[in-house]
Amino acid sequence: MPDSSAVPPTPAEVEASLRMPLIDAMTTQRAVRRVRPDPVDDEIVLRCLELAVKAPTGSNSQNWEFVVVKDPDTKRRLQDQYRRSWALYGGAGRRLYRQSESMQKVLRAVEWQVEHFHEIPVLVVCCLRGQRIPFAPLPPIAESSYYGSIYPSVQNLLLAARAIGLGASLVTLPLWSTTIARGILGLPLSVTPCCVVPLGWPRGRYGPTTRKPVGEVVHLDRHGNQPWRSR
Amino acid sequence: MPDSSAVPPTPAEVEASLRMPLIDAMTTQRAVRRVRPDPVDDEIVLRCLELAVKAPTGSNSQNWEFVVVKDPDTKRRLQDQYRRSWALYGGAGRRLYRQSESMQKVLRAVEWQVEHFHEIPVLVVCCLRGQRIPFAPLPPIAESSYYGSIYPSVQNLLLAARAIGLGASLVTLPLWSTTIARGILGLPLSVTPCCVVPLGWPRGRYGPTTRKPVGEVVHLDRHGNQPWRSR
Repeated sequence: MPDSSAVPPTPAEVEASLRMPLIDAMTTQRAVRRVRPDPVDDEIVLRCLELAVKAPTGSNSQNWEFVVVKDPDTKRRLQDQYRRSWALYGGAGRRLYRQSESMQKVLRAVEWQVEHFHEIPVLVVCCLRGQRIPFAPLPPIAESSYYGSIYPSVQNLLLAARAIGLGASLVTLPLWSTTIARGILGLPLSVTPCCVVPLGWPRGRYGPTTRKPVGEVVHLDRHGNQPWRSR
Repeated sequence: MPDSSAVPPTPAEVEASLRMPLIDAMTTQRAVRRVRPDPVDDEIVLRCLELAVKAPTGSNSQNWEFVVVKDPDTKRRLQDQYRRSWALYGGAGRRLYRQSESMQKVLRAVEWQVEHFHEIPVLVVCCLRGQRIPFAPLPPIAESSYYGSIYPSVQNLLLAARAIGLGASLVTLPLWSTTIARGILGLPLSVTPCCVVPLGWPRGRYGPTTRKPVGEVVHLDRHGNQPWRSR
């Protein structure tokens, strides 16, 4: 008999789950990298993207583009890119975090994701239209403004996935070469791929995350003035 | 008699409001720029930031820093910067969007925000620690990964503010010179200011936003393949 969690939710169940309290969605959002190969209904993906585009964009330009990748060959080609950059960064990560069991756990989950990338049912490539000139130095705040138009929508996508119970994470390594990624996805030069959100029904579970106390990262008026440190 | 909306919520009311359904928070989030000068309790700001830091960061580096600015002199100095960059971009915006009544409305709201920036009770400057070398060209995806560690938390902050009924928006113009912003906020070179979220009790109201149909910005497998265009 199939595991009951393997039965995808009905549209009515999806709508009901999106009514999850905001605070519960935020406090139990975590990267769920190990997902099953079972398909995810297009309607569910589009529902998540409908909420993604409710996020703000600079000057309300609404200049996002999302490429929903389901084609096996395209997924394989993105996997090749992911494997290439992971060979570099994964090795460095394993050495750097040798002492940290929790980071080793993350690295193993990423390793799993690299090896199974082609089996993940949906890869959402989040892109921005606009004049992003590669290798042309811009004031840092121009770069910040640019990416500030895509990542709020990515966070909405991740929170919507969490509420629906769809495994999701945020990765950039498959796009390390934007030139190659453009070729794979048929993106014109005017569209910049920013990150990938792989989606699938989870093998793992969502649950509470741990974070540093907020007082450690909050300063009052000037950097270094931390009256809430003991909080 | 004071307007009932001028009475700040109790801690219990804040907690209750954070239980707003996720979908309602997302579909009624909008930039609320016109806010009252009345103070916002530190506990409410910290509660929003506690939820901000639940968002993911690259390699779980948790490398955000938030400077909560309440000091009038510091606010004035940030306002000077905002006014300077707005003189440039606001003029261009007014010419560019001469035909669009909705954009003229946005521009008027930003204009209001510039003129009243020093009266806004709390300015949260969202920053990232890390080796962001100004003017050194990086592959675009390295930049994307970098800003991908701050904007998900900024979106959580905006959604939490929306649930609580606190006016909020996302602005970068006051930080146009990161060098000057570093001086104003006492930020070391290792901390990059990314954006400002001004917070205050709204004069305006939250409400549904309008967006292009999702099918217009979603592509299947390859850019240009838009099977959901009519959706």
